[in-house]
Amino acid sequence: MDTLLIKNIVHNGTVCDIFIRGGIIEDITGDCSRIADRTIDGKGMTVIPSFVNMHTHSGMTLFRGICEDMPLDRWLDAVWKAEKELDSEMIYWATRLACLEMIKSGTTAFTDMYWYIDRGADAVAASGMKAVLCYCFLDGGDPAKQELQREECMEMYRISRSWPETVKFGVAIHAHYTVCDENMLWAADFARKHSLPLHTHLSETESENIAHSDRYGISPTRRLSDLGILGPDLIAAHCLWLDDNDIGLLGNAGVTTVHNVNSNLKLASGYRFRYNELRDAGANVALGTDGAGSSNNLDMLETMKTSALLQKAWRKDPTAMPIPEVFAAASANGAKAMGIGDGKIAPGSPADLLLVNTGSPCFMPPFDFHANLLYAANSSAIDTVICNGRILMEGRRVEGEEEIMENAAAQIDRFLKLINK
Amino acid sequence: MDTLLIKNIVHNGTVCDIFIRGGIIEDITGDCSRIADRTIDGKGMTVIPSFVNMHTHSGMTLFRGICEDMPLDRWLDAVWKAEKELDSEMIYWATRLACLEMIKSGTTAFTDMYWYIDRGADAVAASGMKAVLCYCFLDGGDPAKQELQREECMEMYRISRSWPETVKFGVAIHAHYTVCDENMLWAADFARKHSLPLHTHLSETESENIAHSDRYGISPTRRLSDLGILGPDLIAAHCLWLDDNDIGLLGNAGVTTVHNVNSNLKLASGYRFRYNELRDAGANVALGTDGAGSSNNLDMLETMKTSALLQKAWRKDPTAMPIPEVFAAASANGAKAMGIGDGKIAPGSPADLLLVNTGSPCFMPPFDFHANLLYAANSSAIDTVICNGRILMEGRRVEGEEEIMENAAAQIDRFLKLINK
Repeated sequence: MDTLLIKNIVHNGTVCDIFIRGGIIEDITGDCSRIADRTIDGKGMTVIPSFVNMHTHSGMTLFRGICEDMPLDRWLDAVWKAEKELDSEMIYWATRLACLEMIKSGTTAFTDMYWYIDRGADAVAASGMKAVLCYCFLDGGDPAKQELQREECMEMYRISRSWPETVKFGVAIHAHYTVCDENMLWAADFARKHSLPLHTHLSETESENIAHSDRYGISPTRRLSDLGILGPDLIAAHCLWLDDNDIGLLGNAGVTTVHNVNSNLKLASGYRFRYNELRDAGANVALGTDGAGSSNNLDMLETMKTSALLQKAWRKDPTAMPIPEVFAAASANGAKAMGIGDGKIAPGSPADLLLVNTGSPCFMPPFDFHANLLYAANSSAIDTVICNGRILMEGRRVEGEEEIMENAAAQIDRFLKLINK
Repeated sequence: MDTLLIKNIVHNGTVCDIFIRGGIIEDITGDCSRIADRTIDGKGMTVIPSFVNMHTHSGMTLFRGICEDMPLDRWLDAVWKAEKELDSEMIYWATRLACLEMIKSGTTAFTDMYWYIDRGADAVAASGMKAVLCYCFLDGGDPAKQELQREECMEMYRISRSWPETVKFGVAIHAHYTVCDENMLWAADFARKHSLPLHTHLSETESENIAHSDRYGISPTRRLSDLGILGPDLIAAHCLWLDDNDIGLLGNAGVTTVHNVNSNLKLASGYRFRYNELRDAGANVALGTDGAGSSNNLDMLETMKTSALLQKAWRKDPTAMPIPEVFAAASANGAKAMGIGDGKIAPGSPADLLLVNTGSPCFMPPFDFHANLLYAANSSAIDTVICNGRILMEGRRVEGEEEIMENAAAQIDRFLKLINK
């Protein structure tokens, strides 16, 4: 089994060595004299758990900057029209590009909802990251599509059995307003029968809630609860427009709720994500970037900062969402929901780690490392990214990044020509 | 006179060459064959105007991360206590550190309000940046201090006559609630007599406004207007809690209002900066980072993104603060207020420029450069910084940065020991 030794790294304020075997942290000691297959020097750097992006559409790097300054309904129209031109080769390289961007900003695992996930899985495997890639139900109430999607889902699940262990299959219900009840129930049932994560968009906009309430007389969360869809295996993105009852239902069911602050701000969907209440009710609160078409990047550190700042501002409480909770939401809470460890740096935990270079002005004074990283630095301070004990980035270099950029550029060129034709 | 030639740079979507003489852009042409003292290759990069940080306290880099998660009143108590330990050597290196951080994030000019500005001026001159450094009135109603501050102000103004042309003297009224009326009037009069910029904090918090209204029966803006302090030479920071009348007064007087979004969010001061209304009323709207003690960095690109996102979110309008206006607020509007040009890239304009490296995943697709820079990239994409035709950073290297970091670290060490004693 491969071994990796990180020497002279600061961990919790102390310089130490970290010995990793087979992707798992084995030892954290003062001065390790063991011989590893690979030894790296962490001098001048601090180690933290890597980030887990709990809601994105990785293939949407193709859409970055092409639908600016639009409300969600017009944005969805533009995106859905352009998505007709996508093919699996575009998705492969768009996902490689997304993985490159995520690695460069310190993310090693993500939960994804997009198309052609078999090619997405190839891209994730090539990147060395971990992911849950969800087959996405979106039938718009069309009966022919409903049946077709069930077959596709089963077929994709069959294909996924040959994916590497680091890439997991999940089932997504795009949203309660784009999938019929029968398929929502079928999808949840299929996911649970096979112990797969279930993913959905929930109460992203106020208008979505109002339309739902007009039709059903209850909130979307209440309806999902009544249908039996809430549960600890559900990863619900956005959860921005919730009332106290909704929060109680999500908390009692132990749902993972994902705050996607930059996307919510940019599309003007809202900003009063009820972090304290969801946390206190028992929900697992994680963070996500959403896709590059709306957010417009996949940078978790930026998401963390904006999330913390917004909590303080709208609650009128500068102590809201304190620093340790922001880091937990960005690492441990996501890792737990994805079933990939505890997001801790401790013997027995997966070696999913970031080495942060503290040599820039943003880390002066060196008084509070986490405050400096969160509030002052940006993701360019991340020097080295390790996933499952394997080095994905070192000295900010990712192996093969030129090839990824070149191939992505060719696919982007093809995509832009098709949507502008 | 020194000449600089930038070859193969993208400007407004076209590859061109920019010839600079004596700090001024002389020519922008397709292919320049002229010989310059220095030629740099801008291949793969795009040129934009550099950023102007219109409100900061540069010496406060010393305070980064040491007063986390506090409301403004407790934060001010902690800061004012610690500030008693400052000396001029600390300020010199703290300001060098601030300038280094600003250059690394694309800022070439700033408006500052802090202590020991004679040493601050030495630091700015050494950095090659442009600044307005304001002598700060803060008397707390103490008559002895009032007289002393007038003398200090006159003496500092005398000293400032020997500063280089790029560093200007200004006069600051800390705030209407920390300076007596007599000194506010004296400061404004002194500034106007000598054609100096006037700087102040205005309506940063709701509680400040309420206290003012309880005491005077009118808003702070109205009182400053009645005292004759508003004018096109006034740079008013924060301006967060304004009513329609205040906005009319600030607009009619042509005041420069500075939005410091990250500081406002972090201290939970508020978020509804009335950008549209101020702009439409005729105020000059610029952006600032505030000091590193509150914000916690001096990164204008981050400020730009957060400002734009917040406008969209609280106004429920994804078209609010469109991209060209964000860039104008961060460059041209500040340059105009500081009297250092028009923030344009055109013959006759000062050569205050950034060369942005578009080789990272955040610039793919290359569909909308400004959207990619603002919403996807971070300031590490800025490769080269030019101020007055002089290269302050190239390939992200600033001359002498190690020396600055070492000396700043020594002063920080001394400062932390004193405040923790």
